[in-house]
Amino acid sequence: MPAVALPERRLANAIRALAMDAVQQANSGHPGAPMGMADIAEVLWRGIFKHNPSNPNWINRDRFVLSNGHGSMLQYALLHLTGYDLTIDDLKQFRQLHSRTPGHPEYGYTAGVETTTGPLGQGIANAVGFAIAEKTLAAQFNRDGFNVIDHHTYCFLGDGCLMEGISHEVCSLAGTLKLGKLVAFYDDNGISIDGEVEGWFTDNTAQRFAAYGWQVIGPIDGHDADAVRVAIMDAHSDSTRPTLIICKTVIGCGSPNKQGKEECHGAPLGASEIAATRAALGWDYAPFEIPADIYEAWDCRVKGDVLEKNWQGQFDAYQKAHPDLASELLRRLKGELPAAFALQAKAYIEEVALKGETIASRKASQNALNAFGPLLPELLGGSADLAGSNLTLWKGCHGIQENTAGNYVFYGVREFGMSAIMNGIALHGGFIPYGATFLIFMEYARNAVRMSALMKQRVIYVFTHDSIGLGEDGPTHQPIEQLASLRGTPNMSVWRPADAVESAVAWLSALQKTEGPTSLVFSRQNLPHMERDALQLDNISKGAYILAEEKGVLEAIIIATGSEVELAVKAQQQLTAQGKGVRVVSMPSVDAFMAQDVSYRDKVLPPAVRARVAVEASHADYWYKFVGLDGKVIGMTSFGESAPIKALYQHFGITVEAVVDAVNSLS
Amino acid sequence: MPAVALPERRLANAIRALAMDAVQQANSGHPGAPMGMADIAEVLWRGIFKHNPSNPNWINRDRFVLSNGHGSMLQYALLHLTGYDLTIDDLKQFRQLHSRTPGHPEYGYTAGVETTTGPLGQGIANAVGFAIAEKTLAAQFNRDGFNVIDHHTYCFLGDGCLMEGISHEVCSLAGTLKLGKLVAFYDDNGISIDGEVEGWFTDNTAQRFAAYGWQVIGPIDGHDADAVRVAIMDAHSDSTRPTLIICKTVIGCGSPNKQGKEECHGAPLGASEIAATRAALGWDYAPFEIPADIYEAWDCRVKGDVLEKNWQGQFDAYQKAHPDLASELLRRLKGELPAAFALQAKAYIEEVALKGETIASRKASQNALNAFGPLLPELLGGSADLAGSNLTLWKGCHGIQENTAGNYVFYGVREFGMSAIMNGIALHGGFIPYGATFLIFMEYARNAVRMSALMKQRVIYVFTHDSIGLGEDGPTHQPIEQLASLRGTPNMSVWRPADAVESAVAWLSALQKTEGPTSLVFSRQNLPHMERDALQLDNISKGAYILAEEKGVLEAIIIATGSEVELAVKAQQQLTAQGKGVRVVSMPSVDAFMAQDVSYRDKVLPPAVRARVAVEASHADYWYKFVGLDGKVIGMTSFGESAPIKALYQHFGITVEAVVDAVNSLS
Repeated sequence: MPAVALPERRLANAIRALAMDAVQQANSGHPGAPMGMADIAEVLWRGIFKHNPSNPNWINRDRFVLSNGHGSMLQYALLHLTGYDLTIDDLKQFRQLHSRTPGHPEYGYTAGVETTTGPLGQGIANAVGFAIAEKTLAAQFNRDGFNVIDHHTYCFLGDGCLMEGISHEVCSLAGTLKLGKLVAFYDDNGISIDGEVEGWFTDNTAQRFAAYGWQVIGPIDGHDADAVRVAIMDAHSDSTRPTLIICKTVIGCGSPNKQGKEECHGAPLGASEIAATRAALGWDYAPFEIPADIYEAWDCRVKGDVLEKNWQGQFDAYQKAHPDLASELLRRLKGELPAAFALQAKAYIEEVALKGETIASRKASQNALNAFGPLLPELLGGSADLAGSNLTLWKGCHGIQENTAGNYVFYGVREFGMSAIMNGIALHGGFIPYGATFLIFMEYARNAVRMSALMKQRVIYVFTHDSIGLGEDGPTHQPIEQLASLRGTPNMSVWRPADAVESAVAWLSALQKTEGPTSLVFSRQNLPHMERDALQLDNISKGAYILAEEKGVLEAIIIATGSEVELAVKAQQQLTAQGKGVRVVSMPSVDAFMAQDVSYRDKVLPPAVRARVAVEASHADYWYKFVGLDGKVIGMTSFGESAPIKALYQHFGITVEAVVDAVNSLS
Repeated sequence: MPAVALPERRLANAIRALAMDAVQQANSGHPGAPMGMADIAEVLWRGIFKHNPSNPNWINRDRFVLSNGHGSMLQYALLHLTGYDLTIDDLKQFRQLHSRTPGHPEYGYTAGVETTTGPLGQGIANAVGFAIAEKTLAAQFNRDGFNVIDHHTYCFLGDGCLMEGISHEVCSLAGTLKLGKLVAFYDDNGISIDGEVEGWFTDNTAQRFAAYGWQVIGPIDGHDADAVRVAIMDAHSDSTRPTLIICKTVIGCGSPNKQGKEECHGAPLGASEIAATRAALGWDYAPFEIPADIYEAWDCRVKGDVLEKNWQGQFDAYQKAHPDLASELLRRLKGELPAAFALQAKAYIEEVALKGETIASRKASQNALNAFGPLLPELLGGSADLAGSNLTLWKGCHGIQENTAGNYVFYGVREFGMSAIMNGIALHGGFIPYGATFLIFMEYARNAVRMSALMKQRVIYVFTHDSIGLGEDGPTHQPIEQLASLRGTPNMSVWRPADAVESAVAWLSALQKTEGPTSLVFSRQNLPHMERDALQLDNISKGAYILAEEKGVLEAIIIATGSEVELAVKAQQQLTAQGKGVRVVSMPSVDAFMAQDVSYRDKVLPPAVRARVAVEASHADYWYKFVGLDGKVIGMTSFGESAPIKALYQHFGITVEAVVDAVNSLS
């Protein structure tokens, strides 16, 4: 650090002081990154970042993502200093229950936090999603003279983000998509948790990002405000390439004995080192005390109001010139479906029921997309290089690669990147993203799928090839334990439909769910149509319903999902012929069913009936929740095999006979 | 393809014919990659690859990994043609149940298949693992004049592998580790499933790999045998850098109407196109017919026997000069633990029991490593940049970065890469790899963890920070659904120990399990020591046991794991004081318990006792398998929060009082 106390350095030191004080107060947290990136943050947030602290929801604000989310105090300090609704008392509550300053930035907890970060590499992926959303929304809605959507996306990231594989997936795609308004700052401090990174991270990062088609600036001195400013201007000047600014920084900058060392990364500096740091920084204020002149210099509220007012003026003119476009844009940003959609969707479902087709549920999904797609311009689809298998392309699809106003992203073989990008797209607003891969490769994307749920974002996952039913590709491609993993994810809806009708209902449910993601799980193979009366049709959306009533007294219940509903129904027919009173419950969505009131649930699954058999070509363990200690599960307990589908169902004993035998053994 | 029919081209055409015929016969599979890479494969396998088809287990063989595993027929054709135990009838059974030619190469099904591939990018990661194992084992065992471990690792990979994030993680690390004997061939055919990759994959791959510190050769013409040969020689000449040979190829090369197009990637060519291909290639033989001169030219058995005999001669001399080293090497390659280990470990466990320390189980894990590490030179540890948190470094650890004969890998922030690399290390032989991250970031590595289980490899995962008990880092870091996911993975052992004693037993169990991986799940926070008598101590290894007997008649059972065992025991004490007959079952490993005979299981959990409460700070759903429809689960059903540990347990109702109340509500 240069010895001269520059005015800007003093402003940055406010961040350093708040970060070290809050971590010390919590006795937990990460002072190193905020102190290392304080100078960069000061330049960006005070002078360049286009935001309005008084209205964190201003549509056309720049987006900021702290991909190295453990540095959360950097973001909280910035929000507090620039005038967001985050008080000094909030900062004192850092990492406490019910505070607005949780350990990592959590979306929905803090005004101005655009996404939840912490799991490394996903922040930069979210940022790529923001930039895709901005570019696509701008192409769809901007008109000559009206750039109503026109903002940058800025992202801070560290060595950890760059080591993670997902950074490769998303930065490669960002280069291909020419996301010129994405600017990332690499906090190149040479330190990760295990120490100096040179033992495990020797990439030439500049060369790597050049290989992706990025503009690479630096290395610059990340503590030199002017250098940072010039770099950002250079970033802005290139409108076709995303920019990486490599900033050489000193982790924990300001701490005389701990800066530049791993020690200051993830633990409080300690009282004496904090005192030494205050002295070194010339920061003569008490903990959490910020002098008025510093507050004044940081305050961005007036400037932000002006920025938003200017934009609002432009938007008002846009609204006059293009009233329909403007109201459509506002509708989409609010996340409201078109007013007519619910009825149109209902009519489509009835049409599917009448048609009674025997098709794969992945095909039924594509049919639903063809029906709903034209009604929902907010759909932004995609697949991780499996469009023809996932059947995610519908007739009105246009790749954003070729048509910037398009509605489909060819994500390439990048499941994790796709999913985290979709989170960014959903968070940006204006779109309902859906993306697809085989159910098994949900695992590659697993933590981003979880992040959709944690952030309660309307992201729709299309997972096809849902069981051993995919056949010859074998055990590496056959899901066993994945459904249980999805069903155990809080806020996640999971649907595994039994036929085309349930598939259409599942899609509708996913689209109408505003507070979380949905996993739509579809078969590769054909599934026969199930006949239903009007009440049954209506009950599908409840997640589980009586598909086939028992004849006579109810003695046993068969619960099934997806492709195994056919087996359940055939078994019930045999059992009925034997004189047994057996009911078939189709349960396409466990979570939707568990959200019903007890009286409905008890009507479908009367608690007294303990002769219960669950059938699903997935891991058996999950189903004990519904069959209990007295029931049986026909499912998988081992990995699959490579063989044609019929041979596999026989081999693994998932057959009508097995269901019949199981019921007979219980009742 | 050049028109001149070179002799080597004819040999390569045998691969093309077998691939298209087998896929056609199965009516399923991927002819494109085998036909595209046939010329490269011919040069490598006939002339350069150091192997002995008569002994696929020869210790010092070169290793080959088909990272683009959907091209399995390439590998099967090579194995068949060079003389492995894989007949033409086996090829005719491609993708059929119980065949030796499953849809993707499956480890353990086919002689000569070194690893299971298919999930893209993991093959190259396994290859990096093979190369690490070779280099480290060589450094540990080779002596002047005796290079008994000295082989190359070759890997074929495609666009998909290069798009996947894991390729970044492992290729970056391979460069840092200077794995000079790793040679990868990039099948640069410009096609992925969605079509021409230029819409979604525009990396300058040569530049990218140069940034990793690799030697990059090419692009060369992947159909020019001489060019391929020269490239491999150049690769061999650089002993400090891994090499990427970029091979421009035509997917489906030879098929007049489908080559160069996505159409030939993943579907049979069809009878008429196969006929046209035969004509274009000048291949006048019936399906599955290979003329004798071609067989002869391909046969590598004599050469392989000579190679192995020469090596054996060297090894015999080594054995004389260094008898102890030689027998230690053979022991390690057989995967046998040292003869004395079991008794030593038992003594250590008794010592831990006597000591009765209250420590975090992650600390207990490190203590176990300090006890077992000196006895097990085959341990090759590591962590994804969390050594100080996972506590995976023990006193005798030396990073292979600094000491090539070391026993620890600083993997960097690369969970997925680490896990897939460990699979390669385990498959190579000579090591028991263990690697660590936080339990939540198992998700980043999830599909590699599954692959350990699918391939039944002794890979030991150390997952620390196992619940909301980690506190302030919040919901992104707090596992909820991860234990259920691991427990639902076939062949995976999972241990969540309640104290230092169970932790030591868990480590022993993991080390002694030769047929699959183990996940050791440890707490961040301190756990009190539990008192046990000799029988209880002995029963820990059975996965579940009665930790606290009921007083009087058994009325209810509390099942708990890990940090929640303490709550269960305290609840039982209160309930006993109330006069209730309540038993506490500690269940550190569900899978170990389920592997016991019914009589033991019924003794621990008498079927008639239905008043059961399970307590685990993890997703509740899993435990209904043990408490049934009449029991209760004290666990999590939502995501966590950021707060100190005590506040979290209170907030989520995982308390002694909640357990007491639940038991009282049932009995």
